[in-house]
Amino acid sequence: MTRLDQQFTFLAEAEKLKSVTRATPIHDASRPENSGEHSWSLALYALTLAEQAPEGVSIDRVIRMLLLHDLVEIDVGDVPIHSQGGTAHGAEDILKAEAAAAERIFGLLPGDQGAQMLALWQEFEANETPDAIFAKSLDRVQPVLLNHQSGGGSWIDYDVSFTQLEERIGTKIARGAPAVWDWVRDRVEGWFAARS
Amino acid sequence: MTRLDQQFTFLAEAEKLKSVTRATPIHDASRPENSGEHSWSLALYALTLAEQAPEGVSIDRVIRMLLLHDLVEIDVGDVPIHSQGGTAHGAEDILKAEAAAAERIFGLLPGDQGAQMLALWQEFEANETPDAIFAKSLDRVQPVLLNHQSGGGSWIDYDVSFTQLEERIGTKIARGAPAVWDWVRDRVEGWFAARS
Ligand SMILES: [Ca+2]
Repeated sequence: MTRLDQQFTFLAEAEKLKSVTRATPIHDASRPENSGEHSWSLALYALTLAEQAPEGVSIDRVIRMLLLHDLVEIDVGDVPIHSQGGTAHGAEDILKAEAAAAERIFGLLPGDQGAQMLALWQEFEANETPDAIFAKSLDRVQPVLLNHQSGGGSWIDYDVSFTQLEERIGTKIARGAPAVWDWVRDRVEGWFAARS
Repeated sequence: MTRLDQQFTFLAEAEKLKSVTRATPIHDASRPENSGEHSWSLALYALTLAEQAPEGVSIDRVIRMLLLHDLVEIDVGDVPIHSQGGTAHGAEDILKAEAAAAERIFGLLPGDQGAQMLALWQEFEANETPDAIFAKSLDRVQPVLLNHQSGGGSWIDYDVSFTQLEERIGTKIARGAPAVWDWVRDRVEGWFAARS
């Protein structure tokens, strides 16, 4: 196999992410969002909210991370953040399955390139570097705004309270982008108040 | 309105790109691709095929261009490249409508940021700089491979011949990424031969 053979094998595999559905509906609530288009949204969030990133964050690295971050879902599926009372997302067996998926999928690429992308995915997952922390906060904020835009989405399906949203998600958004969480909290709080 | 108000208004508007459908089906032919997930694919193509870009191309700029390039379709819709015998795509009235859409959509952003994104979109459309030419060639190649992967897609719907594919699309891919078109041509030629 040539390098192009390997790269196009990877790209054909990646197309399957468009068939992985998420708990969040798209803007008009007409259907669930898929993880391919979600990844596009996140990259656009990074570009648009770049000035919210702390000093030293490379937005272009954040964008690259976000383009790749969900590819493991081709094997593992999306684990909704509010499922099982908010506990399923970081479960040991899921983390293991995702790590194996990353090895398989990035392993389709030429060795040097696969290793580079795998390292970027691992950095995102570890959530320790400034780039990863900012990327993670965007991954948390976009579904909140999409639930809000579409009339409730997975908040209704999983019967989420504002306190749970703040604990499970708000704290994570605030870690990478505090002003963003302030803005979003003010916008979505009313939705929960009107419901209770 | 604060800058964040404007940025989140833009991001909410951008979500609508997920409802714009294209002529190309997704990988398993189960449904048409939408322009949001298509934009994600293109950014991933740029990242994966970076080494195919000529000297001097900035892949990160190419990725930014590709993330934005289809937002005008929120107003104008996708114009299939093989429609009206391949002539609809560059039609005067469509180009005008797209330019107006770009003004409206990027105009939702803070002035400095909107102007920057509009300029990037215009650069992509003008197809003259090395970054734009490479980005355009990726925008042309991904649908070819998706049609092939899904069993024919819009080639069947628009009764496209290999000669037409080569003229309308191959030449444009080859302009930005000649080795990519060589690889793709060798893969897809057989599909057309088997059909005729
Ligand atoms: Ca396009």
